Amino acid sequence: MEYMEAQLKTRVIGVDISQDRTSYAIVDIRGNIVADGSFDTADYPDLNNFVEHLCTCIVEMAEANGGLEMIRSAGVSVPSGSSVSNSIVNAPNLPWKGIVPLGAMMRDRMGVAVAVGNDAHVAALGEKGYGSAHGMKDFIVVTVGEGVGSCFFSSGHEHLGIDGLAGEFGHMCVWPHGRQCGCGNQGCLETYTAAQGIVTTARELMAERSDASLMRQLETLTPHTIKDCCDQGDELAIEVYRKTGRILGIALANYAALVNPEAIILTGGVSKAGRWLLQPIQESFEQHLFPSMRGKVKMLISKLNNHERDVLGASVLAWQVKEYSLFL
Amino acid sequence: MEYMEAQLKTRVIGVDISQDRTSYAIVDIRGNIVADGSFDTADYPDLNNFVEHLCTCIVEMAEANGGLEMIRSAGVSVPSGSSVSNSIVNAPNLPWKGIVPLGAMMRDRMGVAVAVGNDAHVAALGEKGYGSAHGMKDFIVVTVGEGVGSCFFSSGHEHLGIDGLAGEFGHMCVWPHGRQCGCGNQGCLETYTAAQGIVTTARELMAERSDASLMRQLETLTPHTIKDCCDQGDELAIEVYRKTGRILGIALANYAALVNPEAIILTGGVSKAGRWLLQPIQESFEQHLFPSMRGKVKMLISKLNNHERDVLGASVLAWQVKEYSLFL
Repeated sequence: MEYMEAQLKTRVIGVDISQDRTSYAIVDIRGNIVADGSFDTADYPDLNNFVEHLCTCIVEMAEANGGLEMIRSAGVSVPSGSSVSNSIVNAPNLPWKGIVPLGAMMRDRMGVAVAVGNDAHVAALGEKGYGSAHGMKDFIVVTVGEGVGSCFFSSGHEHLGIDGLAGEFGHMCVWPHGRQCGCGNQGCLETYTAAQGIVTTARELMAERSDASLMRQLETLTPHTIKDCCDQGDELAIEVYRKTGRILGIALANYAALVNPEAIILTGGVSKAGRWLLQPIQESFEQHLFPSMRGKVKMLISKLNNHERDVLGASVLAWQVKEYSLFL
Repeated sequence: MEYMEAQLKTRVIGVDISQDRTSYAIVDIRGNIVADGSFDTADYPDLNNFVEHLCTCIVEMAEANGGLEMIRSAGVSVPSGSSVSNSIVNAPNLPWKGIVPLGAMMRDRMGVAVAVGNDAHVAALGEKGYGSAHGMKDFIVVTVGEGVGSCFFSSGHEHLGIDGLAGEFGHMCVWPHGRQCGCGNQGCLETYTAAQGIVTTARELMAERSDASLMRQLETLTPHTIKDCCDQGDELAIEVYRKTGRILGIALANYAALVNPEAIILTGGVSKAGRWLLQPIQESFEQHLFPSMRGKVKMLISKLNNHERDVLGASVLAWQVKEYSLFL
């Protein structure tokens, strides 16, 4: 009978494009990574070369692992990716400018339906599918790294907003006339709590105060080297993270007042600063949270590593797309 | 044939309970109010008496207007109402304390399914069904009056949060260690921008500054009397609303950064202050909005009057509930 002959496609492709590296993997129904690979994004400044190389890598990987006919669809995580237009939209940190119809380009090259999403959206899908948010319907995933991004779920579905731009947590104004942000506004949350913001806070504190500090001897100030100073008991370095955590805690309490989530999941490089950051976040969060929610919002640290989470999240996105959207 | 005999129920009941007044109406499929009535909420401090009186009024109104058999279900808007538990939960401003299973009580008395929602949620349903948000999928409704409340829609559905507490816009912290709020926290938005907050700002400005002002001769300071001073060109009164609008504009920009709405709809008594408030809101909003969203978020004033909006919103809630939830 004909329906018996139809091939059951039990695998998808997950792709994660970042400024540095592009990773791709075959992922099965259970979230097992069957095969994977990666290359330097910067090696392909020309868009057509990039798409050609990425698709060649994916197709070769698929042929070597059960065949392309087992692949149902592909999902792509990319900064400034839009699920609404299935494109990359004016990415400030990627070599390809303007609006890049990446989904259509990859689909045409591979003959497989492709869904594009931004990194915060895909991170949330990864946490929902295979991470700390599994089984949750209302939650927030916040990434604190080079920037501050987020995505929240509403009754089991990701909230994307009218233009797919929702979740710009890093660009909430926390200090009118405050620090200049790359977005053009002043006082955005990420100018205080993303990597560069933490370094700026450290510089300001060293300038304001005269106490001895290990930070004064550092060749390069980074969230990581500041954390090392904390680990050695450096009071000024600890104060840097205390200040950062206090600001993040208030902003997260405000986010929670609007969304009433079951949990907030923190991820990204800065979230790895450990208790120096997390303890002040938690204290400030509970203190400023709307009283009826107090004690009820779980503050969790992502247990997936970033690479794994983004490729798995992209695979969740791939399962969402219609298989036959290839023909649209 | 049996299915021809089944009565098509073409009407619902919308109920709006506020501290002062309880209103109820029969609403048809097109949003026409077929009949309505109201009474003073304060006349029924005993819960059982209140429910008995309300249901008697509704049943009598229905019997006099086509019969109860035309009524499909009822929806109730009430402060601190929860759609999750179909109850009133610890309402600070109503005489009935603790958790009041209002939906079940009314259903048992009338034999009609009853859905309960809070005032912000129902206001948003009213705007979506019969007001400025008709046809929109992602929008925010903000009420500025005695307090500051809100509800937003995500892809066509109201976002309620894990415990139905979402949208607590008035309790976002805008000023750490700021004014004391009734909720127990400090610096909540509503301590600056709800009715009492505006009066406090006026008092502070009069104390700080020595300029002549019509406000100094007022017997009672209210948002309304302050607006009258604005209308007469009083600079200090204008500054009160300018300051209020600046704070609201930033908070609304932050809300929009997270939700990426098509529109924000302002409602409630304070929103009637006109251009004295709306112009500074709009300026501050656009200035602080995430640049990619700038110029794209409509800032609208509700065109429904509050009474109409709440009864119609409650009727939308009534259409959402299953007719046979009566038997659950």
